[in-house]
Amino acid sequence: MNLLDPHTGLYTDHYELTMAQGYFLGGKKDTTAEFDYHFRQCPYQGGFVVLTGHAELLDMLEDYRFTGKAVDYLGSIGFDKNFLDWLGKFRFSGYVHGVREGEIVFPHETCLRIGGNLIEAQLVETLVLNIMNFSSLVSTKAARIRQAAGENRDLMDFGLRRAHGMGGVLASRAAVCGGFNSTSNVFSAFQYGLRSTGTMAHSWVQSFDDELTAFRTFARLFPEKCILLVDTYDTLNSGIPNAIKVAQEMGKEGKQLTGVRLDSGDLSYLSKKARRMLDLAGLESVQIVASNQLDEEVISSLLDQSAPLDSFGVGTALVTGKGSGALDGVYKLSMINGKPTMKLSESLVKTTLPGQKSLYRYSDRDGNFQADGIALEPEEDFETIFHPFESGKSSNIAEYEREPLLRRLMKNGKKTGKPETPERISEYVASRLGRLPEEHKRFLNPHIYRVGISPALLRLRDRVLQVKEK
Amino acid sequence: MNLLDPHTGLYTDHYELTMAQGYFLGGKKDTTAEFDYHFRQCPYQGGFVVLTGHAELLDMLEDYRFTGKAVDYLGSIGFDKNFLDWLGKFRFSGYVHGVREGEIVFPHETCLRIGGNLIEAQLVETLVLNIMNFSSLVSTKAARIRQAAGENRDLMDFGLRRAHGMGGVLASRAAVCGGFNSTSNVFSAFQYGLRSTGTMAHSWVQSFDDELTAFRTFARLFPEKCILLVDTYDTLNSGIPNAIKVAQEMGKEGKQLTGVRLDSGDLSYLSKKARRMLDLAGLESVQIVASNQLDEEVISSLLDQSAPLDSFGVGTALVTGKGSGALDGVYKLSMINGKPTMKLSESLVKTTLPGQKSLYRYSDRDGNFQADGIALEPEEDFETIFHPFESGKSSNIAEYEREPLLRRLMKNGKKTGKPETPERISEYVASRLGRLPEEHKRFLNPHIYRVGISPALLRLRDRVLQVKEK
Repeated sequence: MNLLDPHTGLYTDHYELTMAQGYFLGGKKDTTAEFDYHFRQCPYQGGFVVLTGHAELLDMLEDYRFTGKAVDYLGSIGFDKNFLDWLGKFRFSGYVHGVREGEIVFPHETCLRIGGNLIEAQLVETLVLNIMNFSSLVSTKAARIRQAAGENRDLMDFGLRRAHGMGGVLASRAAVCGGFNSTSNVFSAFQYGLRSTGTMAHSWVQSFDDELTAFRTFARLFPEKCILLVDTYDTLNSGIPNAIKVAQEMGKEGKQLTGVRLDSGDLSYLSKKARRMLDLAGLESVQIVASNQLDEEVISSLLDQSAPLDSFGVGTALVTGKGSGALDGVYKLSMINGKPTMKLSESLVKTTLPGQKSLYRYSDRDGNFQADGIALEPEEDFETIFHPFESGKSSNIAEYEREPLLRRLMKNGKKTGKPETPERISEYVASRLGRLPEEHKRFLNPHIYRVGISPALLRLRDRVLQVKEK
Repeated sequence: MNLLDPHTGLYTDHYELTMAQGYFLGGKKDTTAEFDYHFRQCPYQGGFVVLTGHAELLDMLEDYRFTGKAVDYLGSIGFDKNFLDWLGKFRFSGYVHGVREGEIVFPHETCLRIGGNLIEAQLVETLVLNIMNFSSLVSTKAARIRQAAGENRDLMDFGLRRAHGMGGVLASRAAVCGGFNSTSNVFSAFQYGLRSTGTMAHSWVQSFDDELTAFRTFARLFPEKCILLVDTYDTLNSGIPNAIKVAQEMGKEGKQLTGVRLDSGDLSYLSKKARRMLDLAGLESVQIVASNQLDEEVISSLLDQSAPLDSFGVGTALVTGKGSGALDGVYKLSMINGKPTMKLSESLVKTTLPGQKSLYRYSDRDGNFQADGIALEPEEDFETIFHPFESGKSSNIAEYEREPLLRRLMKNGKKTGKPETPERISEYVASRLGRLPEEHKRFLNPHIYRVGISPALLRLRDRVLQVKEK
């Protein structure tokens, strides 16, 4: 979907338009170019990134244009008339190659390759970075929280109130792609076909004269999915006893209380006490839901202490990417007029990889991911990959199964296929993470996954480096 | 502006709709209510918050509704038909009182009071929190960065590529409200009347055979505002010498190079070297612009070391609220059917303040802010304010000038006035921060600003507490 339509073209950094005008007036209107989207560091000090945002990005690239109103505005702030005449007719007609949405990717890998003429490939930079960096940040966080919560506990996105303005729209989709079951965000559920859930706030309880009446009324109106929030006044002395009373009354009518929700206090202590009280009342099937400032580390720690929690509502940490706040993805020119190019830097780690690239994944006989290799297009045959920055380090990948990861996603400005649903993406994420060895998934100081470059790419980089440095 | 129109109503947490249906079917359709928006902690471990988001929020409240498509969707996921018939005709018809946009506010203060009937005041909770929390987070960061950069240096928002999806739209407005001069974000400039700026990326330089040609072409095409990015290959050995060459060529044609931009490396070391080289070439007027991972602390530290920087481009840290990621604003029921109510908690700090409130600011003879007082409506006369959580602590405010801070912003679902422009808001922020004593603006461990409650509010809270706890 595209909230900016029909003004998608304006959602860009001013310098992209300045450069576009410069290319246009400076005789580079027909120059071709290709850019790489990659990142340098995994967020959360983690070992992987779940790359998402494809569906949204491709929708927006198809809509990328400048209306008459937009063109008039750009004229009023000083852009050139001839350039604007051209811009008014502009549509993105380039190509996008990339990994599948939901792929597990690693630093320095070419995740997307976007090309066409120089002007169009330059203009869309900001949009590519804005969408991919944020969506992947949230999907990666969601996958980590899923890892902490285990396969079978329910995970609900509660983040909308702390999401960054309209960023909340994409955040909820990204959360489900990364492994959440549902969201509180009804707009995103409506737009993306997600499951939305939600029962009561403290204000529901406060709006009645007493907690028991508030619970009874809710149970009468919503007997099918009744989850009672038990901490408005006093969790163990009022909330849980009142919930038990209501559950027993529901039981007499053949109905069942779904659960209780704890939203403050020590969730381990309270959940154990609450579980005991519920069990003693014969209410073993009533679930305990926890919320309040949760993230993957708090959830891990609660479950390590055997807190009997069935379900988690996670908000701020999920949708704001707590611990990182941004994925540091960049969009760098790799080909200009058919020739490889790269950006230099004082440190080799911040130089980029030149040329038109492919990306392969190598798995052992059990299907476990062992290494990724970045190579040049067209395909070359090689048995060794080299460390991208530490010369002399190499790995033999001859024995492994090889899987190409880049596919064509857009051609001549049109999507090549239908986008996957968030549910389907989430299944793919789970299956791929299942093949990533444990040591790369550790929260604390994970082992760095091997990413190498092919012999031909290594030679090309050294050659371009020498030319640039001379 | 409102990107969600006509589906603003759906941008809500599912539980708001569940509760709305519950109130509707449970006989509370005509119950009145009022909620308070306040926060508990200043972000960034700072001493104040710059509250913004008003204009956006009020626009969206005016548009708040459920289209036929939205109602059909809600029916498909199980909402009640009678409720939905009512919801299809629903418009927000309540009131909003609040501080002025750009006001400096502190923890526990009633920043907004939103009321009407219980259903409408409940339904808009998520929207209020989503907009106000994020906008204020960014405006507060912007004000801190302005403080670090001093009054006269130029501050440019470069954050769009790392902003949280469409959150970037509001982020740039909030940045300018908080004290930035301009933004790279053309869409927000177009929508909110901000100034947008931007010159070149590394790809511009890479797209030419050599750096000098890239600089010369840019200078020829954009002689009026020519800022050259000097770190694509080697800042001191190539970028600055080439920029000097181009500046001298421009000089011969009666034109002037505006500046150079440093985007990597040690910005203190490089700016001092670059300044010397430029000055030696007689280019004292050429400015040095810095970007790359800046925030208020890095800028403070660079200026402490006398780095000769004229202007800063700040991205990720600004638009993602680095260091906090979210303002913890909450929306709590304070009145129900004309009666004061509050949420209890195991700690007094997390209980809320009951009743319909006013907010006053007390200033000394020099106009410096000395304390704020939260009181009850209608106005009462008092000379002492009490610490909201530590009994026995009080302050005499009789000698100070008193200024009421809450005003009516919306009545019967309609704005009571035209919104202020971001530029005007930014001037207001500067004037108000100028009156806040230094010790509350320190980055490290700032002195806590005095916020007290009136005698009548203290009595009311104690009375409601006793009733609830019995």
